[in-house]
Amino acid sequence: MVANLFGGSAKDSQYIVVIGCGRLGSLLASQLSAQGHSVVVIDRYEAAFENLSGEFSGFQITGDAAELATLRRAKADKASCLLAVTREDNVNLMVAQIGKVVFEIPSVLARVFDPAREVIYKEFGIETISPTHLSADVFLQKLETQFNQVAK
Amino acid sequence: MVANLFGGSAKDSQYIVVIGCGRLGSLLASQLSAQGHSVVVIDRYEAAFENLSGEFSGFQITGDAAELATLRRAKADKASCLLAVTREDNVNLMVAQIGKVVFEIPSVLARVFDPAREVIYKEFGIETISPTHLSADVFLQKLETQFNQVAK
Repeated sequence: MVANLFGGSAKDSQYIVVIGCGRLGSLLASQLSAQGHSVVVIDRYEAAFENLSGEFSGFQITGDAAELATLRRAKADKASCLLAVTREDNVNLMVAQIGKVVFEIPSVLARVFDPAREVIYKEFGIETISPTHLSADVFLQKLETQFNQVAK
Repeated sequence: MVANLFGGSAKDSQYIVVIGCGRLGSLLASQLSAQGHSVVVIDRYEAAFENLSGEFSGFQITGDAAELATLRRAKADKASCLLAVTREDNVNLMVAQIGKVVFEIPSVLARVFDPAREVIYKEFGIETISPTHLSADVFLQKLETQFNQVAK
């Protein structure tokens, strides 16, 4: 299941735990699995796994990732990477912290919707990705392009 | 209120209608207002306007943007741009279509959470921005960078 963690080549397979199998989680799990990584995806609701594409060949665990037992079942201690991408910022923060502190996962990334909370994540050494900021940047870029076109 | 639509310079002020004053809408409205554009922001709930920053000097309209009367109050026919960024894909699609077809707004951009719906938007000539796709791309980029660093 775990193949060549920290191996000699960037192409080596990583062991990745994805928390949350909604739109983003299922997209990430499917793509990472298709890239040849070992992926475990955790969601509270079994129905969420229907979002996974046919390319997903990893493991599915139904459970609450904020509970240690669930992360142990996912062999989180073997993971090189944890992605916390449920739709709840609080859950992502909590699970990311557990992944970092208890399971010492080298790379922990979390989605955070509320830009005000990014500061908290950073204090804990957790890298955050904000869909709100990303979207705002792209909206503003597209607008600027269009205004420039109109002005020509 | 409306200054130099389609003016001679990219720096000219535009008249922009923003639908939805949640995290993304308030961020966009605040930044565009700070850039000197004339901005009207519409939300169903008055409390949403508390999200706006102190830099926002535009207009606020409390109402349902899917109703023609609300968009008329916002002088949507004068707008050079409409941004549909409520948290509901259905509302964004409907308002974007009304903006395009009824008010003939040249530039209509909509947020769409569900990647499967992007196709529908494109059929109507509405440009879409998917936070899900944007976030997935950034997660995968960051992961690749980290895997490469570990592999060195």
